[in-house]
Amino acid sequence: MKEECGVFGAFVQGELETKVFEIAKTVLFHLQHRGQEAAGIVISDGKRLKQHKGIGLVQGVFANGENYKGQIAIGHVRYSTRGRSDLLHAQPLIAEYLGHEIAIAHNGQLDNADEIRKNFEKQGTIFITRSDTEIFLHVLTRNLRKPPIEWSAKEIGEIFSKEISGSYSLAIATANKLMIFRDPKGYRPLFYSKVDDNYFFASEDSALKIITPEEIDIKEVEQGSYFEISKETIEKGKFSESKNSAHCFFEFVYFARPDSNIFGHSVHVIREELGKLLAKEKPVEADIVVPVMDSGFSASLGYSKQSKIPLELGLVRNHWVGRTFIKPQQSIRQQSVKNKLHPIERVIKNNRVVLVDDSLVRGTTMKEIVNMVRLAGAREVHVAIASPPVKYPCYWGIDIPTSEELVASNKTIEEIKNEIGCDSLAYVSLKGIKELLGDEYEKFCLHCFNGRKK
Amino acid sequence: MKEECGVFGAFVQGELETKVFEIAKTVLFHLQHRGQEAAGIVISDGKRLKQHKGIGLVQGVFANGENYKGQIAIGHVRYSTRGRSDLLHAQPLIAEYLGHEIAIAHNGQLDNADEIRKNFEKQGTIFITRSDTEIFLHVLTRNLRKPPIEWSAKEIGEIFSKEISGSYSLAIATANKLMIFRDPKGYRPLFYSKVDDNYFFASEDSALKIITPEEIDIKEVEQGSYFEISKETIEKGKFSESKNSAHCFFEFVYFARPDSNIFGHSVHVIREELGKLLAKEKPVEADIVVPVMDSGFSASLGYSKQSKIPLELGLVRNHWVGRTFIKPQQSIRQQSVKNKLHPIERVIKNNRVVLVDDSLVRGTTMKEIVNMVRLAGAREVHVAIASPPVKYPCYWGIDIPTSEELVASNKTIEEIKNEIGCDSLAYVSLKGIKELLGDEYEKFCLHCFNGRKK
Amino acid sequence: MKEECGVFGAFVQGELETKVFEIAKTVLFHLQHRGQEAAGIVISDGKRLKQHKGIGLVQGVFANGENYKGQIAIGHVRYSTRGRSDLLHAQPLIAEYLGHEIAIAHNGQLDNADEIRKNFEKQGTIFITRSDTEIFLHVLTRNLRKPPIEWSAKEIGEIFSKEISGSYSLAIATANKLMIFRDPKGYRPLFYSKVDDNYFFASEDSALKIITPEEIDIKEVEQGSYFEISKETIEKGKFSESKNSAHCFFEFVYFARPDSNIFGHSVHVIREELGKLLAKEKPVEADIVVPVMDSGFSASLGYSKQSKIPLELGLVRNHWVGRTFIKPQQSIRQQSVKNKLHPIERVIKNNRVVLVDDSLVRGTTMKEIVNMVRLAGAREVHVAIASPPVKYPCYWGIDIPTSEELVASNKTIEEIKNEIGCDSLAYVSLKGIKELLGDEYEKFCLHCFNGRKK
Amino acid sequence: MKEECGVFGAFVQGELETKVFEIAKTVLFHLQHRGQEAAGIVISDGKRLKQHKGIGLVQGVFANGENYKGQIAIGHVRYSTRGRSDLLHAQPLIAEYLGHEIAIAHNGQLDNADEIRKNFEKQGTIFITRSDTEIFLHVLTRNLRKPPIEWSAKEIGEIFSKEISGSYSLAIATANKLMIFRDPKGYRPLFYSKVDDNYFFASEDSALKIITPEEIDIKEVEQGSYFEISKETIEKGKFSESKNSAHCFFEFVYFARPDSNIFGHSVHVIREELGKLLAKEKPVEADIVVPVMDSGFSASLGYSKQSKIPLELGLVRNHWVGRTFIKPQQSIRQQSVKNKLHPIERVIKNNRVVLVDDSLVRGTTMKEIVNMVRLAGAREVHVAIASPPVKYPCYWGIDIPTSEELVASNKTIEEIKNEIGCDSLAYVSLKGIKELLGDEYEKFCLHCFNGRKK
Repeated sequence: MKEECGVFGAFVQGELETKVFEIAKTVLFHLQHRGQEAAGIVISDGKRLKQHKGIGLVQGVFANGENYKGQIAIGHVRYSTRGRSDLLHAQPLIAEYLGHEIAIAHNGQLDNADEIRKNFEKQGTIFITRSDTEIFLHVLTRNLRKPPIEWSAKEIGEIFSKEISGSYSLAIATANKLMIFRDPKGYRPLFYSKVDDNYFFASEDSALKIITPEEIDIKEVEQGSYFEISKETIEKGKFSESKNSAHCFFEFVYFARPDSNIFGHSVHVIREELGKLLAKEKPVEADIVVPVMDSGFSASLGYSKQSKIPLELGLVRNHWVGRTFIKPQQSIRQQSVKNKLHPIERVIKNNRVVLVDDSLVRGTTMKEIVNMVRLAGAREVHVAIASPPVKYPCYWGIDIPTSEELVASNKTIEEIKNEIGCDSLAYVSLKGIKELLGDEYEKFCLHCFNGRKK
Repeated sequence: MKEECGVFGAFVQGELETKVFEIAKTVLFHLQHRGQEAAGIVISDGKRLKQHKGIGLVQGVFANGENYKGQIAIGHVRYSTRGRSDLLHAQPLIAEYLGHEIAIAHNGQLDNADEIRKNFEKQGTIFITRSDTEIFLHVLTRNLRKPPIEWSAKEIGEIFSKEISGSYSLAIATANKLMIFRDPKGYRPLFYSKVDDNYFFASEDSALKIITPEEIDIKEVEQGSYFEISKETIEKGKFSESKNSAHCFFEFVYFARPDSNIFGHSVHVIREELGKLLAKEKPVEADIVVPVMDSGFSASLGYSKQSKIPLELGLVRNHWVGRTFIKPQQSIRQQSVKNKLHPIERVIKNNRVVLVDDSLVRGTTMKEIVNMVRLAGAREVHVAIASPPVKYPCYWGIDIPTSEELVASNKTIEEIKNEIGCDSLAYVSLKGIKELLGDEYEKFCLHCFNGRKK
Repeated sequence: MKEECGVFGAFVQGELETKVFEIAKTVLFHLQHRGQEAAGIVISDGKRLKQHKGIGLVQGVFANGENYKGQIAIGHVRYSTRGRSDLLHAQPLIAEYLGHEIAIAHNGQLDNADEIRKNFEKQGTIFITRSDTEIFLHVLTRNLRKPPIEWSAKEIGEIFSKEISGSYSLAIATANKLMIFRDPKGYRPLFYSKVDDNYFFASEDSALKIITPEEIDIKEVEQGSYFEISKETIEKGKFSESKNSAHCFFEFVYFARPDSNIFGHSVHVIREELGKLLAKEKPVEADIVVPVMDSGFSASLGYSKQSKIPLELGLVRNHWVGRTFIKPQQSIRQQSVKNKLHPIERVIKNNRVVLVDDSLVRGTTMKEIVNMVRLAGAREVHVAIASPPVKYPCYWGIDIPTSEELVASNKTIEEIKNEIGCDSLAYVSLKGIKELLGDEYEKFCLHCFNGRKK
Repeated sequence: MKEECGVFGAFVQGELETKVFEIAKTVLFHLQHRGQEAAGIVISDGKRLKQHKGIGLVQGVFANGENYKGQIAIGHVRYSTRGRSDLLHAQPLIAEYLGHEIAIAHNGQLDNADEIRKNFEKQGTIFITRSDTEIFLHVLTRNLRKPPIEWSAKEIGEIFSKEISGSYSLAIATANKLMIFRDPKGYRPLFYSKVDDNYFFASEDSALKIITPEEIDIKEVEQGSYFEISKETIEKGKFSESKNSAHCFFEFVYFARPDSNIFGHSVHVIREELGKLLAKEKPVEADIVVPVMDSGFSASLGYSKQSKIPLELGLVRNHWVGRTFIKPQQSIRQQSVKNKLHPIERVIKNNRVVLVDDSLVRGTTMKEIVNMVRLAGAREVHVAIASPPVKYPCYWGIDIPTSEELVASNKTIEEIKNEIGCDSLAYVSLKGIKELLGDEYEKFCLHCFNGRKK
């Protein structure tokens, strides 16, 4: 089960104990782009864990409910589910072992999940959920066999190091402590800030900014490292000395917020550079550059700068489109893109247009957009994609469909161009990305583009 | 965790496959008195299990939602939970094992649950829920180690027979079959009817009446027996030859619907007999018999007949009281019984009143009622309880509080009388019940009254 | 538009100003039986009117929302609407005139509403709602032509006296005062209690009991009288010296709560007397008396006492039936009574049964009940109705259908008996009611039975 | 009461009668930017009007509910209300006169509303709502005095022409006809398309595009003209020969969707031209142009082109901010802009920034943005506003606050600059707009900028 998500963790003291639930809601709201299916917060009051979870957006899930107080909070926003999409899979997941509770919030995906699950199943163990999150719990109890309040982050890290392979930015809460883990290869981002004696953790730095004073630095949680924070102790350590990194390049391409700075780079700047690269590598003759809003905007700026072709607002995005939209009747279904994007004819008419978007996955939406732009009077429609062709599914937490559905894994670029109906189709080359990243290139996972597992 | 509940199961064919979800809702609605906390239905379409669960009453939970179609349905209404009361504990519980789904709906309680859980925990197994239902799953997978679609009711019954002790009326659905089990001692009721080639199961016969033609018999599922129904086969068998029975007498006293016929008796008639017994055993001089509506009504009829004291409507019940009621302010909280029961002064004034209720658990409500009746002008208030003193908690599925909270486990009848403030207090004697039931007495569990485990 | 409703009014001082909203909710909850379609409360904080209205039961409507504070509150529960059933018709109705707000809550129905409306329409006035309540507003502004805060109850009463004919128990709130009116003939009940310097008004005394200390009397608001209560003054007066009364007898038969005392009588006792009358006037040979719960219970007690035929619980009512129930499929629709009433076969079998209910309107439900009781094994089924045949529609606030739908206005008793399928059918005679009420008979409106307008 | 709104109307035939409710929802969804407080649709099935209204966004209001069928539909989205914000004010407003229903949906505001209302009140007429919409109804019934189904658009137009002054784009539905009106000066936009024999009307052409085939023109409803469409007839006419126009310029500045074409111009293009004008009239030395997304985007493109200063994404907008957001605690309230806009430091740092926005009303938000941009490291922050100073309230339908709250009506530009804390502040000049519009200038209402009533 794919788990594109955002996680949050906090350990606070004093007056902030009455505000930690509010803080959790605020940070989760700023991680909303990482998961819109479900949201949840677990608070420890020192003795028990209190939870509030729900299906839907952060604003809706937490519109009502009690203001839990406590020193420890973890939270989660959840993206998509294949199959059963019930509240059972909303995180944090709470369980009880030897009389003590444990809650866990996970962003990432294990690549040995099936193997672990099958091993356990062979021994007669049954799993209640389909999530990787439950696997963590089984692995831990099988190895630790003592109440969760006695677990230490250090020993958990060692177990992970031996048994778990894959991506995980994890927040764990027990009654008495907050524990944070980031996988050895650093697939997913994870940040923290320390404000007085309070610690805050979140998937992206931009989400921490809202609660961190300007003068305080927001730092990356090192890959392969852990935090354990309780009343008694603050411990920070490494549980893996792996030198290999596998930062997800797709976080740059699409997933992270443009104002975040992850893996040492501004997301927006990387996107802009990818746009420039595109214009450099595959120049076309055109009159205007039109971003596919909002995802293609950063890249389109770079494209325009590099190509000197002016950027124009040729497509307007309707931001009212939400998740509860009326199910359209059959007759209106084909117009779904029309609900989201509207062409401005005066801008497009008689022009040769370069449409810039961040990536091309199935290709179905772009086909509709190209058609829409043609109907608005474009003389030529060129499509420029600010990433390489997505050819392989992801096993580390990005919800990329199976190969059958990936247009680039089944068709040549020429075939895709014909399918989409554009006059030309350009992708960024992997070589270009390599030059862009320089020495850092090796630190990234580009599996969805090149099929290489790190 | 206590599980007072109602269960449902169905295997249908032909046109009814499109109506089975509607049928499940209807039957659960007629089991509503057995559980008001949560409700759920699982339907198998032959390949996958679809579920619809929610917190609250049947009418609310199923007010919206898809009409699932299929041959197999199981359903559940859930009573109360101590501790975490989230959707996680709504049933049927679905899990997946070796690639195949299994759903389970349970009414009852295991008396070796803690022991089983501890044994599993010692081996490093973690439980996601606190319910006994999950324990069934672990026990089954540990013993069967093959996909649920290959499980047979016969082998499941054998495992239960060896490993599980306690009360269970169970419905299990896999993609391909419906399996039904009733524990060897028959603690909880369970019924079925066969309409053409369709099979329906429910906790009480009254709930099946609504969907069973008049001319078709509704039969009890034999204790220690199972059903396995699939497209290929209908199998019915015994998995235990235990000669001991332990029918829950509290089902008669309070839990079952008065129009049900369980353990071979009309619930209403038993209650009426208990009322007669009370009047015979502990006669008082009084002017009117007033039922504490609705629970004391059947017994009050018997009491009135036996004592020749006329039955009067001295207390009216407000049936609008529901579960979403506005939380009362402190100042209004003491009047909570006033929200439910209203005295009719013209009936009560200057009379010697016998209040008849089904049972006395904590005693707090009765204290308020006695006071209310005195304020309405009663000259004397006698309380007659149509069951023996409840002295012991239940471990087989009735949500009786701990001994500390049970007024009869801590006080003599005289002390309770003083606590409640009535002029006399009468209970039914166990001896009287023995005479009433005759030879059948030994088939019943009266543990909450006499502390004897069957 | 028919308006069977309940009204509430309060003027409070000091600390109670923070609790008046809570009090309003509590009283409306106890008037719930008078209206289940919508509920609303308006509070004056001395300057502005704040409102909270909603569709549905009191518990749902007020489950969330602000706790308004103020000295003045009026409230309303609304029964049914023919035609448009939107929130627009929920009361209290607020409007603004010459810069000042006025809110009005009404129980009753005007018999010159159409005439007034037509007169206004002739002058080009349009009505936004279909309710009689808006008519009051138009009549008042047309006659008073000054801001509502300057209106006095005395002058309003005079206008009513001249222009309005029909039934009305009215609560009016402006920013600065509470005004209460009861129509000159006293069609609908209206009560008040004075607790310290606080005044509470409600349609039934039973609803005021919940907030009135035992030692304080709850009094009837005199017919044709008004109250005006503000910070400055408490005024009470008569605006009509009419000697004629027209108390609605149907309040006794069905509408009011059995524990209420209206028009000088206990509702329950009158119902019981009607039951006795029935047994006296139309005796039948039978084995058991079975109340159609809950409405027929009081009368069945009287019937049983008079006839010496024992009362038995032959039909159980399912109190979970609510307003949001799943719309039944066609195939299940015919069983609707089965959802509400369940026969106890052991009680009914082989017996000659007298079914006692309060009234017979359309006859369709009773037909199903008779059939249900026959299927449960009754040897004979006699139907005894504790009121005379309902032959005429009501124009004063009871939601009785048109003559076409009234079974008794189109059929002889013999024909109705055949239609319903019972062995005998008995009604209470008007003569019997006359004897029962004695001198008071003339004070009652029995229009629905005898067609005589008072 | 201010009424910034969107209206919809449709008359359909044949199969579309089953889809007209769906079409209404779709078009209202595309008018969502014109009103987020409430939404409603009224459908005529030829005999009765059916309505569905609710508080909130189109997606929520229509998430559930029946699919009404009929030939005639009108719809409305509503912006804001000062004072009571209840469902009573959701439109279309339905009333009944002489036994026939009428529904009305209004975008605009009357400038003689108070006068009309006072005149009516003097005659004793009371208004149930505070909306101008009710005034239309009173004026019509007072003048027409016959059932709405007998009203003709022609005679209504004549009444409007005599009695009503102000802005109105109106849709009226009776059982038998659809009537559409646009005020003589054409304050608000209104469009229509004819698809086969079906007619669709909406406030903006962009909302009609979604349901109109590409090859069919969307035309403006002429100012001072009406449509009357029924089964029998399609009539189109003028009810005013006024030569004066008063197109609302603020529709260009902010209110209309950028992809709309109103008053003969592309909204986006006008905004871009305003941006160019700004750069021409008030050039500053700067390094980057940063749009305040999304409202300032079109203008910033023009500004960048004209000034040759590169456009950069310095502020990201969070589109998840909605209307149900958790009420922030006091401590977090000051950060409200932080919830919506996030600076990208890498873009802003060390740069001289020109912030471009569409208008400046209160100035409080811009003050926060300037501060945010400074904290992100800007060397200089220049604010460029793509409209003149807003100095006067609007009486024709734009929700501009009172003069006291308008920063430009109380302060000089220098003072505003200091208040906001920017290094320079530029507005577009009225003279510039005059040049931009040329001969058309006189056709526009710029009252909020120049105080001149047309």
